Amino acid sequence: MRILGIDPGLRTLGWGVIESQNGRLRHVANGLCKSQASDDLAARLLSLHRQLDRVIGDFAPDEAAIEQTFVNKDGVATLKLGQARGAALLTLAQGGLRIGEYAPNRVKKTVVGVGHAAKEQVIHMVKLQLPGCEPAGPDAADALAIAICHAYYGGTHGAMRLREVGA
Amino acid sequence: MRILGIDPGLRTLGWGVIESQNGRLRHVANGLCKSQASDDLAARLLSLHRQLDRVIGDFAPDEAAIEQTFVNKDGVATLKLGQARGAALLTLAQGGLRIGEYAPNRVKKTVVGVGHAAKEQVIHMVKLQLPGCEPAGPDAADALAIAICHAYYGGTHGAMRLREVGA
Repeated sequence: MRILGIDPGLRTLGWGVIESQNGRLRHVANGLCKSQASDDLAARLLSLHRQLDRVIGDFAPDEAAIEQTFVNKDGVATLKLGQARGAALLTLAQGGLRIGEYAPNRVKKTVVGVGHAAKEQVIHMVKLQLPGCEPAGPDAADALAIAICHAYYGGTHGAMRLREVGA
Repeated sequence: MRILGIDPGLRTLGWGVIESQNGRLRHVANGLCKSQASDDLAARLLSLHRQLDRVIGDFAPDEAAIEQTFVNKDGVATLKLGQARGAALLTLAQGGLRIGEYAPNRVKKTVVGVGHAAKEQVIHMVKLQLPGCEPAGPDAADALAIAICHAYYGGTHGAMRLREVGA
């Protein structure tokens, strides 16, 4: 099964595609979709949509996974992230993908072993889980972590066992 | 010029189409797009997208207008509205529509004359401005008010003069 993980954001949206087969994970591709802060909001959302749609077309994932969004005290940031997340979810749904949603601390706990972890730790563990993978940035590493979480918890083929790290 | 006004929301998204010609406004159509709270978020956004896309196809607006979103203390509500707004903006942009954004108090000031007004007052004034119009609900009336605001401030053919109410 091929899984597309998404770390939504308006300025930078991270994505990562992995293959999960017979309890083994394999890195396929990862990257960043970006939008220009100088463009108006609708143009930014359309640009992110087109980039993400191209990823779906290029890598033909079977399912998708996205992080649940924290609501924090910064209402403006919540609104921006919400709009980017809405556009990303719509793009995935237009692509006919089943979508799993995971809380950030569940993703971290799956990939790193604890619910709170530094970005560097997530990148390190993603690279251990997906040999040969070079994340395009922290947002792409997060997206791969979300895809790994989906492989473990959400796959239609039943939960797989995470590879023993370092085994 | 034909204008599609949008009052975004996840459960109910109001829409209204008006025609602005030679400084005169005419009601074309209005209605509500709805999503089921029992469906998952991606399915709800896809459903709203399809309904809104049908409105664009049926009424062929030249431009669109949407309300700017208030950020309030309720982060969960802000996130929900943000996601619905992001999906709506993406749908309008996919439809190739230029989009005007207006603050809620500017919309009310344009249509009612003051920045704060009760829903009933907005409905009343929208019906006065658009003879023969029966809004499908408060959200549809708000959407028509946003379209009126765009006709006044944002039209590519320059600002039009609002009809003297009751004239």
